[in-house]
Amino acid sequence: MSPPLADEPVEPADEGADPLTDGEYAEYLDDLGPAWEVVEDHHLEATYEFDDFAEALAFTNEIGELAEAEWHHPDIHLSWGEVGVEMWSHDIGGLHESDFVMAARMDRIYDGDD
Amino acid sequence: MSPPLADEPVEPADEGADPLTDGEYAEYLDDLGPAWEVVEDHHLEATYEFDDFAEALAFTNEIGELAEAEWHHPDIHLSWGEVGVEMWSHDIGGLHESDFVMAARMDRIYDGDD
Repeated sequence: MSPPLADEPVEPADEGADPLTDGEYAEYLDDLGPAWEVVEDHHLEATYEFDDFAEALAFTNEIGELAEAEWHHPDIHLSWGEVGVEMWSHDIGGLHESDFVMAARMDRIYDGDD
Repeated sequence: MSPPLADEPVEPADEGADPLTDGEYAEYLDDLGPAWEVVEDHHLEATYEFDDFAEALAFTNEIGELAEAEWHHPDIHLSWGEVGVEMWSHDIGGLHESDFVMAARMDRIYDGDD
């Protein structure tokens, strides 16, 4: 049995590698929570909901620290009661397994399981 | 001589008040730094630039704390080396003097003068 996606390492994409296609990422996407979707076969997008601005800001900090630790940085949209995330691997212009690993770790933080 | 815009109080808009028109807000906008513009006579938008993700995250926290303290919450878009801000007074569906005061305080934080 393979380890949970969130426990996989976050690794940079090989230089010149192709982004994942839908057939290749479908299994990873199945492992993510309902916040996530793949948009235009190009990036992952999520919206996480919170009770207020302060909770959304706290979550922004937690995933910001994760991004710094793994050196894999999403775009984060913080507003009242909501944090939006967009993420892809800029080096390869699309999705890499590591994007899904990062997404799974954000789910874990959101669920309070980290 | 009036005090700097950033030293004005942030106050909720009066119920039923009309949003500021361009003739009314022009003077406030003149007091803001180059990051800011008014979009569609409806909201303020800024892009602040930073050296990396960590600095952008730190700024996000500073303006997030300001937003909580004044109970006036912008939308914040955090990405590598950049923080975007969108702000208006939701109660009146447009711009209020307080939006400009908040913007001036963010400029002050960005300039390290807070």
